[in-house]
Amino acid sequence: MNRRDFQIAAAAAAAAALLSEGAQAQGMHAEMFHPKLEGPPTQVAMVIFPGFVTLDLIGPHTFFKALGNVEVRLVSADGAPVRSDTGLIYPADASFATCPKDLDILFVPGGLKGSIKQMRDPATLDFLADRGGRAKYITGICTGTLVLGAAGLLKGYKATGNWQVRQLLPLMGAELVPDRVVIDRNRITGAGVTAGIDFGLQIVAMLRGEPYARMLQLVFEYDPHPPFNSGSPTTASKALVDHLMTSRAADIEAARLAAVASPAG
Amino acid sequence: MNRRDFQIAAAAAAAAALLSEGAQAQGMHAEMFHPKLEGPPTQVAMVIFPGFVTLDLIGPHTFFKALGNVEVRLVSADGAPVRSDTGLIYPADASFATCPKDLDILFVPGGLKGSIKQMRDPATLDFLADRGGRAKYITGICTGTLVLGAAGLLKGYKATGNWQVRQLLPLMGAELVPDRVVIDRNRITGAGVTAGIDFGLQIVAMLRGEPYARMLQLVFEYDPHPPFNSGSPTTASKALVDHLMTSRAADIEAARLAAVASPAG
Repeated sequence: MNRRDFQIAAAAAAAAALLSEGAQAQGMHAEMFHPKLEGPPTQVAMVIFPGFVTLDLIGPHTFFKALGNVEVRLVSADGAPVRSDTGLIYPADASFATCPKDLDILFVPGGLKGSIKQMRDPATLDFLADRGGRAKYITGICTGTLVLGAAGLLKGYKATGNWQVRQLLPLMGAELVPDRVVIDRNRITGAGVTAGIDFGLQIVAMLRGEPYARMLQLVFEYDPHPPFNSGSPTTASKALVDHLMTSRAADIEAARLAAVASPAG
Repeated sequence: MNRRDFQIAAAAAAAAALLSEGAQAQGMHAEMFHPKLEGPPTQVAMVIFPGFVTLDLIGPHTFFKALGNVEVRLVSADGAPVRSDTGLIYPADASFATCPKDLDILFVPGGLKGSIKQMRDPATLDFLADRGGRAKYITGICTGTLVLGAAGLLKGYKATGNWQVRQLLPLMGAELVPDRVVIDRNRITGAGVTAGIDFGLQIVAMLRGEPYARMLQLVFEYDPHPPFNSGSPTTASKALVDHLMTSRAADIEAARLAAVASPAG
């Protein structure tokens, strides 16, 4: 037996011992971390539209799927596949017509131009207003929270969104709280893109308990180490913040303002 | 003009002023943050296989796509679409046969059982060894770094991976450095799942400069606020770490050890 074979045999023996020990301890630990999942599956609908931000969807999707006893559907207007901002194609599981009527979680991701189009699309706003009228939780992140606002779903609620556009939320009746995740009664909103991970973990904690959410945090090794400190307009350099605010395309910003002024107009 | 109309008009005027000011300042700022992108596009191949972890792919994919002047391909063995761990279907852009021969970045995501299968799949290991022999950067995160190890690509290199399995890396000739992101010459490896975001930002900084990477950090609002401190085995409770280590399925761990002992066996 050479050195490498010995190392492997030793690792195998250690793993076997750990697993045997684990089999005994598991019952107790399982109860500690895993909620009892009884009753019908949690129903989640995640709206997708052309140009949605992929990571806006996948951060929350990862945590929604991990709720357990859950049905997560990607819902596009007509049920057809949708191309995201990065060019990935996502098949839809349902259309606005076939999506279940009673949802536990309704979610809207962001999208640069795509979100503006959704803010003026009567079918989207009707769908959101209808499902949002009965959903247990109405949620979104990034520019998706402006779409919730356009559908009238944030009136009188505290909310956040992408740092570049969230100042528009009060124009649709929301109270802007520029935090990473904002929970006001059954409205849960998150800041831009990567905020979907913090948002997802918080929703898991609300629905399945903090021990289970902490377990998922470790499973997904969410121990962030950003290599720089430029992730927020309060920590990035003024030159960088100015650049991103001023280099925005005038036509896009004008369209966004028009959508705020007259949703579905 | 009612109060809301006034607010909107005021916001529109402010936006117009900002955009006009921006049009003047933009040239200077653009040079400061945006690298000159000359020459042929950066070639990136991201291997996908049944059961890969969706967020393992999408974190890095988001940053690779944002490199600019880049061609990012999802590559499956036979070029067919692949189902991820969360059940999402990803069409492939290329097969092992049609993937470009000379890559700038070769990337492998993780997957619980899927990664073990890849470690014993001759076609996968041949592909990785071939493209890895010429790629400028050989990269992976999570359990994907074990697949790189099985292909012989981490021998003599410092590397990391998913906290639950990275202790196996030395059995394949790598030097384990249990950090979030490990860069050793042209090998870049990351820890589990969400580490793909830190990993992606660091690669952008290496290839396009730190100012541009900082800009992307703000665009993707990467200012993480984990609601708990359980993201690493060094910060999570002992009960939680023990639970996750001991509740692992014995058959999966045995298969992983067998794959380490005899890749492609």
